[in-house]
Amino acid sequence: MTDSPTQGSARVRDLLAQMTLDEKAAQLVGYWVDQGGEVVAPLADEMVTTTRYADATAHGLGHLTRVYGTRPVDPVERADWLWQEQRRLKTETRLGIPAIVHEECLTGLAAWKAATFPTPLAWGASFDPELVAEMAEAIGASMRELGVHQGLAPVLDVIRDPRWGRVDECIGEDPYLVGTVGTAYVRGLQSSGVDATLKHFVGYSASQAARNHAPVHAGPRELADVFLPPFEMALRDGGARSVMNSYAEIDGEPVAASGHYLGDVLRGSLGFAGPVVSDYFSVAFLQSTHGVAADLGEAAELALRAGIDVELPTGDAYAAPLLQRVRDGILDESVLDLAVLRVLEQKERLGLLDETFDTAPTEIDLDAPRHRDLARRLAAESVVLLSNDGALPAAPVRRIALIGPNADSSDALMGCYSFVNHVLAHHPGTPAGIEIPTLKDALRAEYPDAAVETVAGCDVEGDDPSGIAEAVAAARGAELAVVVVGDRAGLFGRGTVGEGNDVDDLELPGVQRQLVEEVIATGTPVVMVVLSGRPYAIGWALDGVERPAAVLQAFFPGEEGADAIAGIVSGRTVPSGRLPVSLPRSAGAQPFTYLHPKLGGRSDITSADPTPVRSFGFGLSYTTFSHEDIEVAEQSATTDALTVSVTVRNTGRVAGADVVQLYGHDVVGSTTRPVAQLLAYHRITLGAGESARVRFEVPASRFAYAGRDARRAVEPGRVDLWVGPSSADRETVASVEFTGPVHVIDPDEPRIATADVVTLVGATSA
Amino acid sequence: MTDSPTQGSARVRDLLAQMTLDEKAAQLVGYWVDQGGEVVAPLADEMVTTTRYADATAHGLGHLTRVYGTRPVDPVERADWLWQEQRRLKTETRLGIPAIVHEECLTGLAAWKAATFPTPLAWGASFDPELVAEMAEAIGASMRELGVHQGLAPVLDVIRDPRWGRVDECIGEDPYLVGTVGTAYVRGLQSSGVDATLKHFVGYSASQAARNHAPVHAGPRELADVFLPPFEMALRDGGARSVMNSYAEIDGEPVAASGHYLGDVLRGSLGFAGPVVSDYFSVAFLQSTHGVAADLGEAAELALRAGIDVELPTGDAYAAPLLQRVRDGILDESVLDLAVLRVLEQKERLGLLDETFDTAPTEIDLDAPRHRDLARRLAAESVVLLSNDGALPAAPVRRIALIGPNADSSDALMGCYSFVNHVLAHHPGTPAGIEIPTLKDALRAEYPDAAVETVAGCDVEGDDPSGIAEAVAAARGAELAVVVVGDRAGLFGRGTVGEGNDVDDLELPGVQRQLVEEVIATGTPVVMVVLSGRPYAIGWALDGVERPAAVLQAFFPGEEGADAIAGIVSGRTVPSGRLPVSLPRSAGAQPFTYLHPKLGGRSDITSADPTPVRSFGFGLSYTTFSHEDIEVAEQSATTDALTVSVTVRNTGRVAGADVVQLYGHDVVGSTTRPVAQLLAYHRITLGAGESARVRFEVPASRFAYAGRDARRAVEPGRVDLWVGPSSADRETVASVEFTGPVHVIDPDEPRIATADVVTLVGATSA
Repeated sequence: MTDSPTQGSARVRDLLAQMTLDEKAAQLVGYWVDQGGEVVAPLADEMVTTTRYADATAHGLGHLTRVYGTRPVDPVERADWLWQEQRRLKTETRLGIPAIVHEECLTGLAAWKAATFPTPLAWGASFDPELVAEMAEAIGASMRELGVHQGLAPVLDVIRDPRWGRVDECIGEDPYLVGTVGTAYVRGLQSSGVDATLKHFVGYSASQAARNHAPVHAGPRELADVFLPPFEMALRDGGARSVMNSYAEIDGEPVAASGHYLGDVLRGSLGFAGPVVSDYFSVAFLQSTHGVAADLGEAAELALRAGIDVELPTGDAYAAPLLQRVRDGILDESVLDLAVLRVLEQKERLGLLDETFDTAPTEIDLDAPRHRDLARRLAAESVVLLSNDGALPAAPVRRIALIGPNADSSDALMGCYSFVNHVLAHHPGTPAGIEIPTLKDALRAEYPDAAVETVAGCDVEGDDPSGIAEAVAAARGAELAVVVVGDRAGLFGRGTVGEGNDVDDLELPGVQRQLVEEVIATGTPVVMVVLSGRPYAIGWALDGVERPAAVLQAFFPGEEGADAIAGIVSGRTVPSGRLPVSLPRSAGAQPFTYLHPKLGGRSDITSADPTPVRSFGFGLSYTTFSHEDIEVAEQSATTDALTVSVTVRNTGRVAGADVVQLYGHDVVGSTTRPVAQLLAYHRITLGAGESARVRFEVPASRFAYAGRDARRAVEPGRVDLWVGPSSADRETVASVEFTGPVHVIDPDEPRIATADVVTLVGATSA
Repeated sequence: MTDSPTQGSARVRDLLAQMTLDEKAAQLVGYWVDQGGEVVAPLADEMVTTTRYADATAHGLGHLTRVYGTRPVDPVERADWLWQEQRRLKTETRLGIPAIVHEECLTGLAAWKAATFPTPLAWGASFDPELVAEMAEAIGASMRELGVHQGLAPVLDVIRDPRWGRVDECIGEDPYLVGTVGTAYVRGLQSSGVDATLKHFVGYSASQAARNHAPVHAGPRELADVFLPPFEMALRDGGARSVMNSYAEIDGEPVAASGHYLGDVLRGSLGFAGPVVSDYFSVAFLQSTHGVAADLGEAAELALRAGIDVELPTGDAYAAPLLQRVRDGILDESVLDLAVLRVLEQKERLGLLDETFDTAPTEIDLDAPRHRDLARRLAAESVVLLSNDGALPAAPVRRIALIGPNADSSDALMGCYSFVNHVLAHHPGTPAGIEIPTLKDALRAEYPDAAVETVAGCDVEGDDPSGIAEAVAAARGAELAVVVVGDRAGLFGRGTVGEGNDVDDLELPGVQRQLVEEVIATGTPVVMVVLSGRPYAIGWALDGVERPAAVLQAFFPGEEGADAIAGIVSGRTVPSGRLPVSLPRSAGAQPFTYLHPKLGGRSDITSADPTPVRSFGFGLSYTTFSHEDIEVAEQSATTDALTVSVTVRNTGRVAGADVVQLYGHDVVGSTTRPVAQLLAYHRITLGAGESARVRFEVPASRFAYAGRDARRAVEPGRVDLWVGPSSADRETVASVEFTGPVHVIDPDEPRIATADVVTLVGATSA
């Protein structure tokens, strides 16, 4: 008897040996206590949830699903119920095994009264993994206090098309950015004792025309180079403890039924031995939407054999249909054993096989000052200054016209997986449970001596321009117009972005562009603030003749987002966010990301111009930075790690933070190579005139890619290296020659590049 | 010594044995005699064409490139030059081997004074392979008369995205339609003794966001089920004698350097043993655009080893760079031998090793009455009636306003690979060389007693609406307004569709929609005619409240296209074309084709609606048809061919042609299956009240698809079958149960379904 993950401890194996078939199956499913009657998930008519709770728990239970996160329930009251329920499972079921409790926690624990942090796209914009780790640690601590063991985050899908509704849940369009920031989240969350769940494994974000669940057209090299690296990093470097499958079908093969993706790749290449949980309803979808199973029993067998250990949210296929299939002799009971072992191991590790559940918390603050501080700092680092004709920072003014449908909305600050937009939207009239200052509140606090006149002007959606006249009048009477436009996050047709809210048009929703244009026409300087969950085609606002004096892009910045934005408007905060996604030219030019080979961009051979309006990595500041003297320590490298140094200098008049971005391009590859690829980055704050030498240790794996045989390897040849203000600009350039032989990446090689040596050269005049 | 294709005849092997390295390399390249200074191809700065003709032919020559098709040269004069040149190669080079002469011939021989037929999208709309074969036979006969041996057609790329500029060169979005019509073209052309060249092998049409040459994201199953079947049919069923590579990179691997696609798949799975020629400049592109070769020598080696035998249009890489690589000892000379053998075999088969070239033609008619008749018949069958509020056929009228930028344009009738738009556009002032009646000419002939006032109203491109007022005035004074809008085919920025003219917007180009809408507003009944190379998002014209009384879609219908359209307007011809592509909803909803699984269409899980405005297979007539009593001969089928019968009835008052379309859906597959897939079709003409029983023999291979292991096989299980007026409508339904075991498709199984028994039941009243 060994302790190896796939074999289980003696205790766990002993438990398994005692189990009846019913008891085994019970460990492989969740139960969504609060779900009855709620329409919080799509395709309600495709789902089968007929099992009553008492029946579902008669033989034990694998997971309790979203105990806190489905309705606005008081956390302390609910914790009391949960502790009792776990005690009941322990005492009233034959083997006395409590349930794993899992919750959504992407922008914070998605529960009533819990802090709501910036959305992942804002984490990406911060380029600050350390701060994301701090946030995740705080999230995890709250969850642990409430008896929650597993969080369904982070989302490691790499953005491939901004039309997709779920881009606000994603970190960015670069796999390395996604991998580093996502891994930081994993480390933070798990340091609190809560298991992270990597999702969605794999390929979900590349669906056809960005339609949710639509077929993904991709081959093994794109999988290896784009979609898998974040998972690889979060597993190998971050030690993530659970994984959730993707809804996607890739080249015709649904991942939920794929022994290739969930077995060969995840268990094999990536060496993951922990539990895989199904994305909600995805086992049943094998029958109802993908059509690769004739019934739920076959769906269960396909998913189980592929490697999905636990069916969430509730046992539809892994319950009666699976049991029947075993009893009919179609499926051998032993096929369940490995999945049960994985669940029992997880429970053992979480202490569930020991814990007595004696004391539920009697008071808890899920939105404490520490949360507020983290939310504010991360939001401040994530706001991207896209253009500035000098209007920002805005000097003290007496009369501000605050315009736009998002000017006085707290919902507009929250992502799709926030409790506010994910759950409370279905409970009209229920208070948010947390304090969410709007931009109106924040600007009034920021400019206490100014008169702030607030006019919506129009709704986020819809084609009614009748309110624009009032907004124009307000602007005419003001020294500064702040126009706050963008999205409202929601689910499946409620809102303009979020799960299920895919678009075929990337103009700002509704008549918001018209609103901005009419306000600009007044001549009053306009600061346009975009609060959104995806990048929009706002080239007109950045490069048009008649344009706002400044444009700020904030990806749903969370409960303290308004303060962060107001601070940037006034100059209290110097902006430092960078675009984690390309700003698109048009919907018809999609898909496009910066990570394209030469022929994926502008070329003489096509009249279609996909060039983004602003590139990945772009962001302005109130100061300026130069990047000089890039140097590679090795003149000619073997395939070991490289050391690349560069001097960054604050050449402006105020202190500020720069994100030093190291890019590379493999000049000749055995397969086509991107024109630019982020190799490493480092956020650094410098005083005016100050400079620093940033030294990146870049492991060999960062130069690897899938060659003709689809194995990732470092090939000999020249790689151009540069640092610049965005992916599109080379400011200081070097190159390195890799000398043979081809170096296939070892599974245990580190993935995360570090910038572990930063030498302040000292203040100099610019 | 054997005669097997890869070994060569004794004569051919003897020739090879005598050859020097220079003589071998010379057989592997073309020379583009007329190309100097001409900008007829893209990326001029990426090309290297430095070899002079005398040097290039000193050791013989593989191909003469576009002798007739690059400039407006008189065919008889040029034939005289060609005969002399071939005689010179025979007498003045050491081994006396003439050159293969190849030309473009997609819409007819692309040469001055030659007939120009409808564009391939119109062939697709005709659903009439037999007529396409007749056309191709006529094209081939002209080529053979001129000493041309090989034609660079047909294009077998399956349309995946209407934004792509080259869709007008493609037959449709269904692989079976492309395969049957393309194979008919191959049979017709080759029956004249001219070798067809299948292009572009493979995957070209699925480039990212439809940008020409951009990366193709596709996996092996999509390749097997969508892209390869037309090539498989044209090779196995059509016996095509040459293949051209695609410019594409698929999942990072450029096809021109791919031993997988050109070797394992083309030579291996598809068993092709003939010569593969490079798409123009694509060997050099391996270095200059794809970046997978460091120099032209490496590009040559990659392409040669992958399986490209001949570099076209001219030897850039396969000339000095390749020779140097052999002389430097990097590449063994023997690597050239197989390619040389294939070229020599082709020349032997074509009679070039025997021919004496004594007599060039002294007169030739490349646009004879037979060509005209074929062009007219095919055009008439290809025009699709999209809507008709009763305005068509148009009764005799006295005053017609003929409006639109395409109303009096002969260029607007011609595809991108027509000589007119491909070559003559670069020679302003040169007459077309053939008579091309415009719609103005044709309507005047059709309505000899009517006054036809013609007003352009606007240009095809540009944003100048100043001419619309005149068009409106003309419409006000007329009983009928025929508004002719659409595209102008051209290359690389000249024109609105054609090679290199990709778009990110699918509205009609320029202000043409505004023109139509303002003419509609006059109240005069409007017949809108779209002359285009791609389907546009014209939902507003079909389903809007204010809309044309009728809409006709003509994909570039060729030199007799105007007559065909005028005949349909008047009722002389009953329309019978069907959409070979979906009519798109919007550019932002792309890519979309009808061949999608359930989750690729409209679903509750996405707010984006990709539903086409009109579906693949749709087309109205002046009569109506019913489809009844579908019957499958086998109640339960093994995996042999199926016999499916259906009764089609002309339920209207005039004779007309129906395209009977048999669709299927595999209810449960091991991979996701399309909601509808064309299994067979048959064009049939029926008198009013007449009916017929159409019996389809559908071979097993039509039910095969790539399962989890990516091999094509017929799996057990139920397949729903139906016949209806388009892919979106089930009019009469049956199903068949395939019983196991899985039946992997044998390479020699036939691919083409036949409707070989048509029983006229006799006239009945409807």
